[in-house]
Amino acid sequence: MLKGFNYPLTAKGKSTLNPTPPWYYSADFLNIEFWADPAAVAALLPPGLDPDVSANGRCNAFFYDWQFSGENEEYLDPARYQYREFFILLDALFEGRPVSYTPYIFVDNDAALARGWLQGYPKRIAQVFQTRYYAATGRAGPAFAPGSKFAGSISSGGQRLAEGLVTLKEPMKDLSQMKQRPVVNLLYTPRLAAGKHDKPAVHELVENVPHDVKIEQAWIGEGSLKLPVCRGEEISDLSPIRCGKGIRASLAYVVDDLKTLKDLRK
Amino acid sequence: MLKGFNYPLTAKGKSTLNPTPPWYYSADFLNIEFWADPAAVAALLPPGLDPDVSANGRCNAFFYDWQFSGENEEYLDPARYQYREFFILLDALFEGRPVSYTPYIFVDNDAALARGWLQGYPKRIAQVFQTRYYAATGRAGPAFAPGSKFAGSISSGGQRLAEGLVTLKEPMKDLSQMKQRPVVNLLYTPRLAAGKHDKPAVHELVENVPHDVKIEQAWIGEGSLKLPVCRGEEISDLSPIRCGKGIRASLAYVVDDLKTLKDLRK
Amino acid sequence: MLKGFNYPLTAKGKSTLNPTPPWYYSADFLNIEFWADPAAVAALLPPGLDPDVSANGRCNAFFYDWQFSGENEEYLDPARYQYREFFILLDALFEGRPVSYTPYIFVDNDAALARGWLQGYPKRIAQVFQTRYYAATGRAGPAFAPGSKFAGSISSGGQRLAEGLVTLKEPMKDLSQMKQRPVVNLLYTPRLAAGKHDKPAVHELVENVPHDVKIEQAWIGEGSLKLPVCRGEEISDLSPIRCGKGIRASLAYVVDDLKTLKDLRK
Amino acid sequence: MLKGFNYPLTAKGKSTLNPTPPWYYSADFLNIEFWADPAAVAALLPPGLDPDVSANGRCNAFFYDWQFSGENEEYLDPARYQYREFFILLDALFEGRPVSYTPYIFVDNDAALARGWLQGYPKRIAQVFQTRYYAATGRAGPAFAPGSKFAGSISSGGQRLAEGLVTLKEPMKDLSQMKQRPVVNLLYTPRLAAGKHDKPAVHELVENVPHDVKIEQAWIGEGSLKLPVCRGEEISDLSPIRCGKGIRASLAYVVDDLKTLKDLRK
Repeated sequence: MLKGFNYPLTAKGKSTLNPTPPWYYSADFLNIEFWADPAAVAALLPPGLDPDVSANGRCNAFFYDWQFSGENEEYLDPARYQYREFFILLDALFEGRPVSYTPYIFVDNDAALARGWLQGYPKRIAQVFQTRYYAATGRAGPAFAPGSKFAGSISSGGQRLAEGLVTLKEPMKDLSQMKQRPVVNLLYTPRLAAGKHDKPAVHELVENVPHDVKIEQAWIGEGSLKLPVCRGEEISDLSPIRCGKGIRASLAYVVDDLKTLKDLRK
Repeated sequence: MLKGFNYPLTAKGKSTLNPTPPWYYSADFLNIEFWADPAAVAALLPPGLDPDVSANGRCNAFFYDWQFSGENEEYLDPARYQYREFFILLDALFEGRPVSYTPYIFVDNDAALARGWLQGYPKRIAQVFQTRYYAATGRAGPAFAPGSKFAGSISSGGQRLAEGLVTLKEPMKDLSQMKQRPVVNLLYTPRLAAGKHDKPAVHELVENVPHDVKIEQAWIGEGSLKLPVCRGEEISDLSPIRCGKGIRASLAYVVDDLKTLKDLRK
Repeated sequence: MLKGFNYPLTAKGKSTLNPTPPWYYSADFLNIEFWADPAAVAALLPPGLDPDVSANGRCNAFFYDWQFSGENEEYLDPARYQYREFFILLDALFEGRPVSYTPYIFVDNDAALARGWLQGYPKRIAQVFQTRYYAATGRAGPAFAPGSKFAGSISSGGQRLAEGLVTLKEPMKDLSQMKQRPVVNLLYTPRLAAGKHDKPAVHELVENVPHDVKIEQAWIGEGSLKLPVCRGEEISDLSPIRCGKGIRASLAYVVDDLKTLKDLRK
Repeated sequence: MLKGFNYPLTAKGKSTLNPTPPWYYSADFLNIEFWADPAAVAALLPPGLDPDVSANGRCNAFFYDWQFSGENEEYLDPARYQYREFFILLDALFEGRPVSYTPYIFVDNDAALARGWLQGYPKRIAQVFQTRYYAATGRAGPAFAPGSKFAGSISSGGQRLAEGLVTLKEPMKDLSQMKQRPVVNLLYTPRLAAGKHDKPAVHELVENVPHDVKIEQAWIGEGSLKLPVCRGEEISDLSPIRCGKGIRASLAYVVDDLKTLKDLRK
């Protein structure tokens, strides 16, 4: 009997990209709210999701510095499991219910890519960076204080796809401001067999169901984001018309489940 | 209608990891034949494949420097599509027919990883290198000549997983020596939904059907391979008992199909 | 007039690897004390430094997650200036005074390498990782608490050169325990001109003079370190005979000077 | 006695970035001739070099896939010594003699960076790629034939700094077309000591003296080059006004010497 959750499946199950869930996460992140052309947002939604007209093209961009673990102290092998991530969420509706959808997401780690694909996160590999906070502050390490700045950047295939900046204003007193729409993604596994290139093996709308969510050290302020035009890429079609709030905080949660909303295969 | 073959699916289909097949490949490669403990080989075979007792633990290791293209000159964006690969093939039997199976494979590129997963190649990300041949030879660039040496190495998660060496003896006159068993892999897509972690969405034995295979500049000689013991890895269970022939050659082929041999879901 | 502090010198001084000092730093770090074979330690000391017999082969290993800035908000370009580092300090004597010396040091960033070389830090490029602390703790993010574990690893040229672990015991009440010997390094710039390969342009013993040093969140406990045998490397000659205390803390300081102790050119 | 040519100097001399010269090289390369604003070219020249007015802003860009070796088969450790490079040469005059000067150069390897700095090549770390030729040609592997295309790209700090393309026209019959001006660089080692930040330890004009130069498989055709505007970079000041010939060839040579033309310290 082969063992392992993701590829590769082997005799002892040590080589697998990921242990069987539950999956544990801790992170620091930047969140930048922005508004794109509503038509560009609508053009990215999969079947089953509708544009949220009242949101008027509202999106959110995120830079995450993650640490991952299964139940065997994987956080003690950071070369294999620590990673960084950038993604965008679009406001949308599922059967009239406000949700958000992930059209673009990038990580710098294969284990994270594998976990993402099973949740409908369409991850590619990239180099992602964000300014870090250190307890020993100074000119190289911004304090948690009004006016402090934290930047993020992401590059894939050698091209800079996004640059973001969060300028802190004040600690977030009311954490309900952090409340996000549930994330609904497209779970999609194509087939290589001739004649089936457009008949995916898996094609579903799925809802993420993270739990034990913890937020700490949340600061709110202003956000700004650039999505430069790049060759062979179309993320710049979401280029911000205007930007809104910016957040810098720490987050922890657990993932061990996924809910299928709709099978999209005919 | 969203466009793209792999994730992400987008309005214009430019961001997708890969264009729709056909997929075109050219490469230089090293091939090292070796024999491992037959019990270790048998322990890695998926349901539906049987040990090839007569092969007595025979395996092959490969280092590839690849160039990929779809039909839109993707080879002119080498930062996104050029890649390097290491893998091992095990001799096995499918319904009594000699085949080979891929228990371990590593690439340094996400597009290659995505294409591999759809063919049952259980790819992880790694750093892979091989000594190159240049038309301008010298002390840094081995000639195609008896005694010339070409080395390969592969590291993942910061650990050296394999080192190989091919020492040339003579040009391969009879290319039928290059003839390989068909590759039969395990196509496997797990599910994250609670209660279904061991009920994969896709679970098949599949056969690769490359075509328009071209071999050039093939030299044969001796091979040697090391698979060091590494933390959290089990590839060293295939550590060579002895090594056989070594090959250095160039290869081109086309992939646009996959044949399902058996559905393994109960 | 060309501008820039390090290579390249250009018309506007924007392309230079580093701005002119002062250089500002903030970091999280792991420190593991260990004892190696005193003869192996002595064999690594440059002319002008003597073995500290009373130290009996005492060394310290460090994993650093750094953020760098000059005076133009370089910390807001983390893709260019954020970096990670591993190094070893040997206890030694300079004219009878206790000092420490850096035989090995690795970073993952060229700007950091350039700054290091000007301080006698003999940096090479590597991949360095350490377990991170996040304010949102959990199974993937260790708390500051007795028994919490933080790991570090470093790989260069695809080989794992060191692995370390710090297990926390208690907050460090007395920061004088952090007090380190001054770092004395070998500043060395060889010459390529024929006949001068062993007549360096610069060959000095230099003392580092950091200032405005700040330590925060210091925890002390136990350390452990491995220095595996690797091909083409000799760092494993310092393999720990036993390990001592382990520290996890945050640090900030400023660098803008260097003191020459001795010119070693004949 | 410590051993090694570059940092680090150690007891056995195995850890050093580079063996003592001679240094051996083989490569495939792309060369694109272009003309930039003559004032931008002149503004990049160091003291001692004069603009070559008759050249009218002529420059050359190069993408190299290198293999390096010392005398101990370093080419068999490609993870440590194989590398890729991009650089620009400016036409200039030294005391009335036509020479070329390197204002920008990037590699993906620390040993190559260390060797370069000793020759006055102001190297930074980057990701560099070029389309490869394979003996097994096809849609992914261009043949040596009229109309075949080879592309190059280079990114540093996550930004795309240059993209080039060479379209082959015909084999180069007369290799004297490959003849280049001698390369004269600025050898520069700054000092960190307070008060000496603008008083370099080494400040010389130096001439490279490669020998045993071999050229093979040279094809000539058309070149094109883009130098996009990037944050914190000024290479785009050399943006091509027009492009000229393009070359794709293989090269080998040996480096073991450097000639000082002028000491620039006052």
